[in-house]
Amino acid sequence: MRIDGRQNDELRPIHIETNYLKHPEGSVLITVGDTKVICAASIEDRVPPFLRGQGKGWITAEYAMLPRATEQRNMRESTKGKVSGRTMEIQRLIGRALRSVVNLDLVGERTIWIDCDVIQADGGTRTAAISGSYVAMALALGKLTEKNEFKELPITDFLAATSVGIDPEIGEILDLNYVEDSKASVDMNIVMTGKGKFVELQGTGEESTFSKDQLEQLLSLAEKGIREIIDIQKEALGDLAQKVLENEKKE
Amino acid sequence: MRIDGRQNDELRPIHIETNYLKHPEGSVLITVGDTKVICAASIEDRVPPFLRGQGKGWITAEYAMLPRATEQRNMRESTKGKVSGRTMEIQRLIGRALRSVVNLDLVGERTIWIDCDVIQADGGTRTAAISGSYVAMALALGKLTEKNEFKELPITDFLAATSVGIDPEIGEILDLNYVEDSKASVDMNIVMTGKGKFVELQGTGEESTFSKDQLEQLLSLAEKGIREIIDIQKEALGDLAQKVLENEKKE
Amino acid sequence: MRIDGRQNDELRPIHIETNYLKHPEGSVLITVGDTKVICAASIEDRVPPFLRGQGKGWITAEYAMLPRATEQRNMRESTKGKVSGRTMEIQRLIGRALRSVVNLDLVGERTIWIDCDVIQADGGTRTAAISGSYVAMALALGKLTEKNEFKELPITDFLAATSVGIDPEIGEILDLNYVEDSKASVDMNIVMTGKGKFVELQGTGEESTFSKDQLEQLLSLAEKGIREIIDIQKEALGDLAQKVLENEKKE
Amino acid sequence: MRIDGRQNDELRPIHIETNYLKHPEGSVLITVGDTKVICAASIEDRVPPFLRGQGKGWITAEYAMLPRATEQRNMRESTKGKVSGRTMEIQRLIGRALRSVVNLDLVGERTIWIDCDVIQADGGTRTAAISGSYVAMALALGKLTEKNEFKELPITDFLAATSVGIDPEIGEILDLNYVEDSKASVDMNIVMTGKGKFVELQGTGEESTFSKDQLEQLLSLAEKGIREIIDIQKEALGDLAQKVLENEKKE
Amino acid sequence: MRIDGRQNDELRPIHIETNYLKHPEGSVLITVGDTKVICAASIEDRVPPFLRGQGKGWITAEYAMLPRATEQRNMRESTKGKVSGRTMEIQRLIGRALRSVVNLDLVGERTIWIDCDVIQADGGTRTAAISGSYVAMALALGKLTEKNEFKELPITDFLAATSVGIDPEIGEILDLNYVEDSKASVDMNIVMTGKGKFVELQGTGEESTFSKDQLEQLLSLAEKGIREIIDIQKEALGDLAQKVLENEKKE
Amino acid sequence: MRIDGRQNDELRPIHIETNYLKHPEGSVLITVGDTKVICAASIEDRVPPFLRGQGKGWITAEYAMLPRATEQRNMRESTKGKVSGRTMEIQRLIGRALRSVVNLDLVGERTIWIDCDVIQADGGTRTAAISGSYVAMALALGKLTEKNEFKELPITDFLAATSVGIDPEIGEILDLNYVEDSKASVDMNIVMTGKGKFVELQGTGEESTFSKDQLEQLLSLAEKGIREIIDIQKEALGDLAQKVLENEKKE
Repeated sequence: MRIDGRQNDELRPIHIETNYLKHPEGSVLITVGDTKVICAASIEDRVPPFLRGQGKGWITAEYAMLPRATEQRNMRESTKGKVSGRTMEIQRLIGRALRSVVNLDLVGERTIWIDCDVIQADGGTRTAAISGSYVAMALALGKLTEKNEFKELPITDFLAATSVGIDPEIGEILDLNYVEDSKASVDMNIVMTGKGKFVELQGTGEESTFSKDQLEQLLSLAEKGIREIIDIQKEALGDLAQKVLENEKKE
Repeated sequence: MRIDGRQNDELRPIHIETNYLKHPEGSVLITVGDTKVICAASIEDRVPPFLRGQGKGWITAEYAMLPRATEQRNMRESTKGKVSGRTMEIQRLIGRALRSVVNLDLVGERTIWIDCDVIQADGGTRTAAISGSYVAMALALGKLTEKNEFKELPITDFLAATSVGIDPEIGEILDLNYVEDSKASVDMNIVMTGKGKFVELQGTGEESTFSKDQLEQLLSLAEKGIREIIDIQKEALGDLAQKVLENEKKE
Repeated sequence: MRIDGRQNDELRPIHIETNYLKHPEGSVLITVGDTKVICAASIEDRVPPFLRGQGKGWITAEYAMLPRATEQRNMRESTKGKVSGRTMEIQRLIGRALRSVVNLDLVGERTIWIDCDVIQADGGTRTAAISGSYVAMALALGKLTEKNEFKELPITDFLAATSVGIDPEIGEILDLNYVEDSKASVDMNIVMTGKGKFVELQGTGEESTFSKDQLEQLLSLAEKGIREIIDIQKEALGDLAQKVLENEKKE
Repeated sequence: MRIDGRQNDELRPIHIETNYLKHPEGSVLITVGDTKVICAASIEDRVPPFLRGQGKGWITAEYAMLPRATEQRNMRESTKGKVSGRTMEIQRLIGRALRSVVNLDLVGERTIWIDCDVIQADGGTRTAAISGSYVAMALALGKLTEKNEFKELPITDFLAATSVGIDPEIGEILDLNYVEDSKASVDMNIVMTGKGKFVELQGTGEESTFSKDQLEQLLSLAEKGIREIIDIQKEALGDLAQKVLENEKKE
Repeated sequence: MRIDGRQNDELRPIHIETNYLKHPEGSVLITVGDTKVICAASIEDRVPPFLRGQGKGWITAEYAMLPRATEQRNMRESTKGKVSGRTMEIQRLIGRALRSVVNLDLVGERTIWIDCDVIQADGGTRTAAISGSYVAMALALGKLTEKNEFKELPITDFLAATSVGIDPEIGEILDLNYVEDSKASVDMNIVMTGKGKFVELQGTGEESTFSKDQLEQLLSLAEKGIREIIDIQKEALGDLAQKVLENEKKE
Repeated sequence: MRIDGRQNDELRPIHIETNYLKHPEGSVLITVGDTKVICAASIEDRVPPFLRGQGKGWITAEYAMLPRATEQRNMRESTKGKVSGRTMEIQRLIGRALRSVVNLDLVGERTIWIDCDVIQADGGTRTAAISGSYVAMALALGKLTEKNEFKELPITDFLAATSVGIDPEIGEILDLNYVEDSKASVDMNIVMTGKGKFVELQGTGEESTFSKDQLEQLLSLAEKGIREIIDIQKEALGDLAQKVLENEKKE
């Protein structure tokens, strides 16, 4: 039995509060069990130097934790004066994932800044950040589409993420909390689209390995979880979800 | 008339949600109008090098803003690789203010870390951080007192802060929001105790000056505001407020 | 009795040597007791990005100490690779104070760089830096006015600063040296103009508090001290002082 | 047809020159087509703070490129003053991968430093670094085993890595060079053991996605390639390979 | 007798492998005994800000060591986040030396980047870097001359460097290896041209001194060594050496 | 004729004001023409890690310029967040030079910190810093010898430095000021002892070269200049100079 009584293929309770902040174009507070992440999407009217003059947009993400999001206080990266390797890896992952479901030609020479700030951490912060950021980004792009900044909503599909892993005693499980994650012999983060395609697959067996059969089972669990999260995203997005569905079919 | 319809001596609505986070020893979400700050207090069992072996405690504060706490996205200080002068000034102010109402001998060789993270900014973030941190710190120290870590609650008085300023058209006003702050010719942050004593007084007339009479009026406004904030703190602290009151009388 | 035999309302001997350096547009060596600060004013023909195109000038200050200005050698901030919070706080204070007596529209799109380098420290370095920088800046602006760079001297008033504080045994005192500052329960830095208006008021009772009556007395001491420092500045400035007086009256 | 005439499931020519450097305990120059990486393994007699007193070893990796390893000169990270997100991601990957085939209890309180310096880059530098580092590490651990520092060789299996991807025109291909990598719609790095188990799986469809069927095909290609690389490693290791094979069977 | 059996005036075996790397305009691997340095020359079509608009070129050098170039692993400067004083001193030396034999007016507004990466260190890395960089730079400039980017080869003379020193027991010696360098009481690096003129002379007696007579002897040794290195450079450069000789005579 | 009317072998007026600062163990203000440097020597009762437990002392130097020491304001290195290559080169030079005339075994496990702060710059700041630092260090070591911290004064000889160079029109000249230095085709800094031995010799012909004959002449000029500076040092040191002379003879 899992530590919090869940079935092996059961997600933690997920809640997405939209327009959580006053200032950003799009924002949410996403809650996955005890993990809480504020995701904000900001639109800037220019792109980084390497893209200038190409008429294409860009999406870039930043991720941070409050010092007391965790059990032990963690030192601020601004105080350390540098961003850790773990943070950079997560930031690059979030940006890449979101770029796979946005038509950057439609966005034009604009940068979408995604800020993910973990208020409270209990495992799965990076996948919660992706699932939440997708909604914040959709709200922001929806707002600009309404103002006729784009000729149509530049989002081509849904996108969500979750983690799966292998517990040495219980086997393959879905959506690991912090305690489960610490014990897991294999840990995998998966990002998928509404059409069921993979966007990112990052599996790692730190001091351990896994077979092709185990991989199969992990992928099935992830697929089930992500389908459920996308349903929650659709509810949060309301009418906007409909427009994404239309785009998804067009592809 | 003030932009949001308040009287010149009227605070914005203030709310303090205690134990906002799961992990820290003490935490609050303080809301002052549209300004929202998460304040967390953590207790560490050692002091910085300059205090070792003296049997005394220390209080240190860190302050940060989420990138989209503000109208325009502000760059993360971790990304810039350094903490701004403004941030350091605020951190030093918060630490100094809290140290004035704590009996650091009673605390013993422990550091109280105060983390103030501005989720949403609309003026007065540093004074909201002080008023909120006081409550977070009291909750943390209360918890340790209950566990008999201290022989009595090491807090000697209440403490709150607000801003006052001079609007070129309206005159002296209490608790400035962002728009008022931008227009003010004089801006003053005041920290006071429950007994009505000053702890910090930081008045500045950027590209402007002020007379002794104006100073008198600003101080009266601040005193009124701080008395009201302390009443809200008392409510938030419940039984713990009673213990502080007893200590306050002993002094 | 004070440690160096002064009356409670007595300044230390102050001396201002003008044109101390060969290269800067304006410079002084200010000596306040054993505190010695070199202040240099440089004029640059452009403003920081946030002011460009507005036709207004800017004043910015930098402050540093030689490693052996102090009893114990202090590490260079260039070696540490970052500027301390204390230094940034002082730099911001000096810049703000000087901007309050300069007509930045008259200055036009120029930046006045103020460099304050403490050669020897014995308390009151930041207030000495302000009083000295005012003179260095006036010399620099005077020189440019003579060259018809401005249609008139863009200084609207005199400006000086001092510290006051409460000694636990002696009470309120003026112009604290290092030993007095270390013992003081309340420490206040005050910047005032020639007309007797406040520009900055920074009072702090580290691990202590102060009443309204005590505040009154501290303000009176500071006023007396600043009047005397302004007299010394006038002597140092010679003819230039006359032009400032004329501007002061116009206002 | 592939740009360099290879079959879709064909590796580039691979060569591993052992003991390439004079000073390190183990070192190789690995050549994969035009990609050349110097891998060095150093043994230090202590572990990072978080592991002290546990009697276990640690493996940590650093990765860098010479400025002219690439077509365009890339700026040194020492000159920029910070290590990029990409570098940190690769360093963490190499360390994690190697730790999965080493018995860290047998290693005891020692750190194995792996240095991968890319002399010339033509795609696949991170997987070449893993395949080469494995050999450098085995040489170093073999040397210490001979000196009876360990009671047996602390390596439990072989380990190699390669990349696979989807070319928009050709389909699934093995071991992408730089030009192929730039065009690929999906890019996946895979690390496997001699027993055919997965250690790391990092698949990403930047601005693209991939189906489960495509994933299957990519995994098969990678498996074939890694088997061939392990054969080359065995040849390079000579007698030492035999000892690893014995350990592999014991597991 | 010297530790490796050489005569006091004997160089270690020197070998220069030209076009060692695929991407740079010019590159060599220079081997001096066990010291191995990769030198690459890159041409960029612009100059640093202080030279813009003057029609002149610039040469700048960077120098680094692989972590295991040395007996003890040395920490990467990218990890430390700053470049050491020793590294900067060497970089400035290499740049200055090369600039003395290049006609920068002929080069036009281009920067020649020299990258020296020490693969293996056994004393004399900076002088090997200069001798090797000269050849890499000549190859790069030769290539551009062939493409008619310059009206003639902009190199005015040959240039090489070596070290000399005083061994407390043996006396003056040429081309010190690491062990000799560690024992030497005086250490001198000398850069000379093909015409036998000095370009740089850096002699230092750390915790020791040297007389004018000793200086004379050291200079003679260096002259002999540098003549021999220039002969090896000429062989490596082939036809290009002839063009330099013609330029040398013109001067 | 030289720009300031001096003979080719004539030093600028030199003055050394001893005990210039209140706090350091030894300090001077050295004036060489318009170049002014404050040199302070501090004694710390421990050595850097690499020397611990060897019973030997260490000397380390730091060098900086005030922003307005120069014609154009130069940016503070603390603001830039890093120390320039030029500064590091000078710091290493000063430290090395002073270590050559101190008996570090006698000093014991202490570090002598030398701080050289250039107040005003007109060429020759590094050599002025060496000549001044020698006196500051001698004063500090003399003070500790009087307190019987050492069994005898641990200074073995005098030490001074100057620059020489080749002016394209005038030829070899001594003690170059800023204007002369900017025009010089060859620039050489020389450090010598009271016995006339070389300690450092750093000659550089930026974009130029020099012959053996020219070197001879430069060395003669430097020798004459340094003899004169040492006479000025002796006068400044008074009785202490006598003790150094006695040590010098003993060697």
